[in-house]
Amino acid sequence: MSRREPPRTEEGLYVLHDLRSVDWDAWRGAGERDQEAAIEEGIAYLQDHADVEEGDTAVFSVLGHKADLLILHLRPTLAELDAAEREFEKCALAEFTDRASSYLSVTEASGYTEAAADYFDPDAEADPGLQRYMDSRIHPELPETEFVSFYPMSKRRDPEYNWYDLPFEERRELMEAHGDIGRDYAGKVTQIISGSVGMDDHEWGVTLFADEMTDIKHLLYEMRFDPSSSKYAEFGRFYTGRRFAPSDLDAFLAG
Amino acid sequence: MSRREPPRTEEGLYVLHDLRSVDWDAWRGAGERDQEAAIEEGIAYLQDHADVEEGDTAVFSVLGHKADLLILHLRPTLAELDAAEREFEKCALAEFTDRASSYLSVTEASGYTEAAADYFDPDAEADPGLQRYMDSRIHPELPETEFVSFYPMSKRRDPEYNWYDLPFEERRELMEAHGDIGRDYAGKVTQIISGSVGMDDHEWGVTLFADEMTDIKHLLYEMRFDPSSSKYAEFGRFYTGRRFAPSDLDAFLAG
Amino acid sequence: MSRREPPRTEEGLYVLHDLRSVDWDAWRGAGERDQEAAIEEGIAYLQDHADVEEGDTAVFSVLGHKADLLILHLRPTLAELDAAEREFEKCALAEFTDRASSYLSVTEASGYTEAAADYFDPDAEADPGLQRYMDSRIHPELPETEFVSFYPMSKRRDPEYNWYDLPFEERRELMEAHGDIGRDYAGKVTQIISGSVGMDDHEWGVTLFADEMTDIKHLLYEMRFDPSSSKYAEFGRFYTGRRFAPSDLDAFLAG
Amino acid sequence: MSRREPPRTEEGLYVLHDLRSVDWDAWRGAGERDQEAAIEEGIAYLQDHADVEEGDTAVFSVLGHKADLLILHLRPTLAELDAAEREFEKCALAEFTDRASSYLSVTEASGYTEAAADYFDPDAEADPGLQRYMDSRIHPELPETEFVSFYPMSKRRDPEYNWYDLPFEERRELMEAHGDIGRDYAGKVTQIISGSVGMDDHEWGVTLFADEMTDIKHLLYEMRFDPSSSKYAEFGRFYTGRRFAPSDLDAFLAG
Amino acid sequence: MSRREPPRTEEGLYVLHDLRSVDWDAWRGAGERDQEAAIEEGIAYLQDHADVEEGDTAVFSVLGHKADLLILHLRPTLAELDAAEREFEKCALAEFTDRASSYLSVTEASGYTEAAADYFDPDAEADPGLQRYMDSRIHPELPETEFVSFYPMSKRRDPEYNWYDLPFEERRELMEAHGDIGRDYAGKVTQIISGSVGMDDHEWGVTLFADEMTDIKHLLYEMRFDPSSSKYAEFGRFYTGRRFAPSDLDAFLAG
Repeated sequence: MSRREPPRTEEGLYVLHDLRSVDWDAWRGAGERDQEAAIEEGIAYLQDHADVEEGDTAVFSVLGHKADLLILHLRPTLAELDAAEREFEKCALAEFTDRASSYLSVTEASGYTEAAADYFDPDAEADPGLQRYMDSRIHPELPETEFVSFYPMSKRRDPEYNWYDLPFEERRELMEAHGDIGRDYAGKVTQIISGSVGMDDHEWGVTLFADEMTDIKHLLYEMRFDPSSSKYAEFGRFYTGRRFAPSDLDAFLAG
Repeated sequence: MSRREPPRTEEGLYVLHDLRSVDWDAWRGAGERDQEAAIEEGIAYLQDHADVEEGDTAVFSVLGHKADLLILHLRPTLAELDAAEREFEKCALAEFTDRASSYLSVTEASGYTEAAADYFDPDAEADPGLQRYMDSRIHPELPETEFVSFYPMSKRRDPEYNWYDLPFEERRELMEAHGDIGRDYAGKVTQIISGSVGMDDHEWGVTLFADEMTDIKHLLYEMRFDPSSSKYAEFGRFYTGRRFAPSDLDAFLAG
Repeated sequence: MSRREPPRTEEGLYVLHDLRSVDWDAWRGAGERDQEAAIEEGIAYLQDHADVEEGDTAVFSVLGHKADLLILHLRPTLAELDAAEREFEKCALAEFTDRASSYLSVTEASGYTEAAADYFDPDAEADPGLQRYMDSRIHPELPETEFVSFYPMSKRRDPEYNWYDLPFEERRELMEAHGDIGRDYAGKVTQIISGSVGMDDHEWGVTLFADEMTDIKHLLYEMRFDPSSSKYAEFGRFYTGRRFAPSDLDAFLAG
Repeated sequence: MSRREPPRTEEGLYVLHDLRSVDWDAWRGAGERDQEAAIEEGIAYLQDHADVEEGDTAVFSVLGHKADLLILHLRPTLAELDAAEREFEKCALAEFTDRASSYLSVTEASGYTEAAADYFDPDAEADPGLQRYMDSRIHPELPETEFVSFYPMSKRRDPEYNWYDLPFEERRELMEAHGDIGRDYAGKVTQIISGSVGMDDHEWGVTLFADEMTDIKHLLYEMRFDPSSSKYAEFGRFYTGRRFAPSDLDAFLAG
Repeated sequence: MSRREPPRTEEGLYVLHDLRSVDWDAWRGAGERDQEAAIEEGIAYLQDHADVEEGDTAVFSVLGHKADLLILHLRPTLAELDAAEREFEKCALAEFTDRASSYLSVTEASGYTEAAADYFDPDAEADPGLQRYMDSRIHPELPETEFVSFYPMSKRRDPEYNWYDLPFEERRELMEAHGDIGRDYAGKVTQIISGSVGMDDHEWGVTLFADEMTDIKHLLYEMRFDPSSSKYAEFGRFYTGRRFAPSDLDAFLAG
């Protein structure tokens, strides 16, 4: 029983998916002044946190009963993420929300592909293009699309489908083939992959951005027939959101 | 480990199964005026949303403790669905309800059958009958039956029962055989199939309509002996509802 | 991969196991008048619903934290069951209860045994004894025993233990052998079997009645060594109740 | 597929593990008089129930968030257990507790060992020593140790590890070997085994008593390497408690 | 089916991971005086408990919705741990917290490695270095790092991956190889291993300390490819915390 070779990984920004439910009963029952204060402070919180020097913050309306708001934070340190989460509780909007769920992770690039392997090789010549590509993965810009899909996932460790017991080369091929599907959706679907081993209940968070929700659906359905997913993926809950500008918080809360 | 061929799919209307519990304690404790306002606004909400240009909204009384109301929305865009969900919170009826569950999906037709394959083939001659059939699947009318059964489901990805690792042809045969059972119940049970990969926790939502609940029971029991279900289906929770006209909301709330 | 032959089934009365918790804090805090009204209306609800023309209603004290009351309704239509559930919310007793769980099903007789096969055969001669037996299964009288055990269950669909992939004849033999164990407890334990495919989260509800709880324990323990259970059964939660007359509701609530 | 032979069992006292959380916020907020009444009535409840003619009642402080109090009742009839549970709700202490969990079972001796087989054999000569041993298992005295560990468990029914599909003789050997480990801890760890088939969600409740918690840990860790556990056991949640005298309820509540 | 040889274990300090959520609504709504009292008493509680003669207490801010505070207690007896847990409820800070989760265990050293086997061998010569090493494992000092990762885990008992059915020698090799990975992170990641068989729902608690969260991530990701984890580990939930000094409680609560 020998140990398998892990890929090298590099991490960039810490990520918090902060999912909150609106307490609509409290909202309806609130006076106009309290509502105004909540909107004002809520917009200020969202705008100030989007204006950080490094990283970003965005807000989404979440469909269904699992949550109403997804506040997505990216920060260079866990300390800043911790602060961003707790600062929300200071603002008057917090009074009208409950925490529904969350996910903690850190943007990750891994050295499975040959190009990526070079990136992690201290003896390889520096390749500016590769450097830019890896950097875009671990210091991503949040795309300005209308829709987002978020889910956490892990790789299976079952007797017949044990990702962590596959030889490195086999995993590399599976990852490359899986990436090929993603590339077919370039321009339609953008992804942020973040690792969470030791940080949260699954091993990765996947955040997909698109202007057509059906593009995300087609991409993931196609991937499900690929061995990386069909044999080795275990999915958590899926959250679907629709982005809105912080300044539209009042429209969101008006129902 | 090669990738399997996914079927083509076409999507139509976004679907939200919005399951709510009535806060009966609050209802009993409410004054007559508050009750009247809740009924009036609730009826207006349900009727206005049923009167949309494209799509539909219907309401059902749900049996058992899992929920009391199922509000079923179909809309051409996710934005409209998002609005329909949040608009409910503006109406006085919302004060007497809690969100119990929900399911987000989009009506789907897939290209497994030979006929359907033609539909997705850009070189095939247009077939108006097929076009009407496919259209009826992705732009369905809500049948006016008394009962509804709703459940989400996924296909298994286990070593011995791995739907996503079956060759396309085998899946096609299984789907056709499965469809044959459904056809035996034509006129008794009507179905709406909606896909939710990337949108919610299972892969499909199944909504069945009938005037006799036992017809749905017989259909699903028969299907359970078919390999599509017996080997490859994983079911979520089942919800049973009884349709009522929005104008009967007062009778529903009277107990 | 061929479809297996399902058994014929016949359905009789719709069944709701309505499990409720008493809000003892509210009860202790209530004035004598409110308590009296709750008892009076609660008794009236239970007696009126037991007095229906077709079907029955009984009430049980449930042991442990999962619930305090089991109200068991049998009705010829889902509409009447739906009404019975919601009518409870009108009565003052409801104010002191929360819904803890529930199960929806319909009494079922299936055509596995040879005798039963005759029953479903339109060409077979009518057999009054068989007719009475089948009728007793789908239009059961609630036995007047002190104890009840209720649990939902499904048959497994795993690669090695797949009930739905067994040939009809094998299932028939398993069902007959299983029934034999039950017959050894005739006079001690009475059962109501109700199907719930498409109606609730498991496939059947099993309700067992006895004057000695250990008789139910012995019966089910013996069954667990029978392949029908040891290989093919998946059980939900178990609820143990003690019947009381509606008129003893005050004694139940006195603690 | 033949039925396996079940062991004979004999039952003695019905057992309720009643796990409750203290509502510390309510407790801190209560006036001195209300606290005194709660303590007085709580002590009276615990002492009166410990003083029953047959059976016993003991109370433990539970570590961690799962519960604060374990009230353990043993009674000759389910009716008395039902009464004991509901009588608690009458006492002022109940106002400061919520029900966190519970487990219902009945003390059980089974005829796996040869000696025990004799006990169940109507033709065997009466053996007073055996009689006393079996009686001590089904009418146990609660040991006066400081610590308790409680957990429910079932035997597996999986294709490769199916307890209920093993021949009787094999199960007998496994049970004897398992019992041998327990005997090595005689004087250190005392156990009460109670069956719950048909009564609660698992098949048995195991309650272990010791003055050193690490003795329980060592015993169970050793057992985990024994096939009875390593292959055939499925465990529920574990609760760890520390016994206190009813008269020390005030010290318990003082924090 | 023979019993496998368990390793010897030695236990040191009992450990409680006490995870609490802050009730931010109550906190925002509280008057300045109540806030000051809560801070003052909270700091006193944390400092007094850190100042115990044997053992330690530390506090961490937890990221995400699962909890806000992790109070980590180590004590020589369960009775002291029980007291520490309940004493918290006496302090004014408790009013603003709810219990989110917890884990009960005891620091453990086991005799898998050859060196450790000597330690447990009464005939082996005393080895002061080994003694110090074992002692550091069961009487650990809490490292003063910024971050902590806590998760409970068990070893699998599945047919193909059954840790408890492996020969001792095989387990010993696996444990040594696993330990080697840990040693590569010496100086970066410190661990406390505590056993919980018979005490809580998993078999061990793992608490990792580091100044860079990514060091913990790299360590655990590497371990996941090692058979001890890839084949035999089952993980519970993961909690990520950031240590703060008791005197910084006001800053923590300020958001």
